[in-house]
Amino acid sequence: MPKMTKEELQARIRVAKLHQWLGLEVLETSEDGIVVKAAWREEWVVNPARGYTHGGILATLVDVVADYALAAQLGAPAPTVDLRVDYHKAAMQGDLTVRAKVLRRGATFACCESFVYDKDGELVASGRGTYALPQQK
Amino acid sequence: MPKMTKEELQARIRVAKLHQWLGLEVLETSEDGIVVKAAWREEWVVNPARGYTHGGILATLVDVVADYALAAQLGAPAPTVDLRVDYHKAAMQGDLTVRAKVLRRGATFACCESFVYDKDGELVASGRGTYALPQQK
Amino acid sequence: MPKMTKEELQARIRVAKLHQWLGLEVLETSEDGIVVKAAWREEWVVNPARGYTHGGILATLVDVVADYALAAQLGAPAPTVDLRVDYHKAAMQGDLTVRAKVLRRGATFACCESFVYDKDGELVASGRGTYALPQQK
Amino acid sequence: MPKMTKEELQARIRVAKLHQWLGLEVLETSEDGIVVKAAWREEWVVNPARGYTHGGILATLVDVVADYALAAQLGAPAPTVDLRVDYHKAAMQGDLTVRAKVLRRGATFACCESFVYDKDGELVASGRGTYALPQQK
Repeated sequence: MPKMTKEELQARIRVAKLHQWLGLEVLETSEDGIVVKAAWREEWVVNPARGYTHGGILATLVDVVADYALAAQLGAPAPTVDLRVDYHKAAMQGDLTVRAKVLRRGATFACCESFVYDKDGELVASGRGTYALPQQK
Repeated sequence: MPKMTKEELQARIRVAKLHQWLGLEVLETSEDGIVVKAAWREEWVVNPARGYTHGGILATLVDVVADYALAAQLGAPAPTVDLRVDYHKAAMQGDLTVRAKVLRRGATFACCESFVYDKDGELVASGRGTYALPQQK
Repeated sequence: MPKMTKEELQARIRVAKLHQWLGLEVLETSEDGIVVKAAWREEWVVNPARGYTHGGILATLVDVVADYALAAQLGAPAPTVDLRVDYHKAAMQGDLTVRAKVLRRGATFACCESFVYDKDGELVASGRGTYALPQQK
Repeated sequence: MPKMTKEELQARIRVAKLHQWLGLEVLETSEDGIVVKAAWREEWVVNPARGYTHGGILATLVDVVADYALAAQLGAPAPTVDLRVDYHKAAMQGDLTVRAKVLRRGATFACCESFVYDKDGELVASGRGTYALPQQK
């Protein structure tokens, strides 16, 4: 079972100012991972003519939601060691939904994976982060 | 020689709303790459107790400045295919400076690398992006 | 439906001398991807005391099988643009099995993902490659 | 100063059977990193018609030499957590030379970078690994 409830995870994720700015809302938590929604804002735009969202925002969402899939198991997020993101499709204006899970949790590191979907359910980006686990003293 | 001057690059980089929000300012352009400054803002914070900057902001800076090192050569930025970021150190409150260069430009894609420094000149993150080059029709 | 049958894929994958050396055998091809076995050999060892397989061999398997999951759809493998591998567990002596699929195929690039399992079915490594698609002239 | 001499590093790198098979020879060790040569062999070929080297071999070289740049400082190599490789150019038949350095060494992990050159000195691949540092008990 996840260590944190959906409500606890929601309270914890909103501590970070950037997560408030991203309008993050935890939709689901389960054995299989978590689902988080991000509320679109105009500052996300990289190309004003076409209006699509900056790849940096998508990278941020891959990182945050992967980390909170781990937080749901650990009780707190862990520092990101490195991050890798693949861009699949331009993310047009609209809220984004991110599904993430822990792929593998070892003794010192965890590898987590996120998938970012646009408002029509199309996959726009996905990626992985490596997270440093807290060590017993 | 770079195809775009520092002033042209500055004008072009500010077109994106997210780049305005990041307060991006082009400091240098040369054969060896570009240097861009980002103006710290409170919304970047991930950990209010310690006040350091979110890894997503650092990932965004790695991507943008790598892409504009390429734009300086091509005349326009190119779509990011994928992005990889290594986190070296917590980035405490303060403006960030990013140095980026084109590592290799082939026929269909380019590989560019960025290094992000804090206000004391410490390396806080670095990484690479793959960019899809415009094709002749 | 895949464009290449299991037999065609097997014949094609064995053209590369390195793939012969790796003892690659295509076990399955379907809509969902492919499964390939690699036959362990002593030269794979990185640590003679413990006898586990070198991470470079695992990286090679991630790349090859991801590329042939794409080849099954395209009729031929495509050049690797970049590769990312996560190591989950030491791979002790024994044959390895790799499952791979195409995560997303765009107009110019494809992103493919592989998972490598040891002889006990434990996940030992996984990762992704970006592949450059052939362009119409 | 590096902790291991060139001769010690050479003796250590040859312990792994795969490194023997790759014909690894340490050419230089200094404050700035290490240089290692790999002796071409026919089993490296991925495309018999054109005769170029498999990307998996290049990925292996990126990983090994990055890890031994760290070993030169630590006295022993460290486990690879994850690996990322960019392919810049086909590597035709011939020995390869790899330059690697430690980009950043923290308390629990290190980020190291390698550049692979063909016999004409052309950059054919480059990349980075994250390595888990030994912890005090």
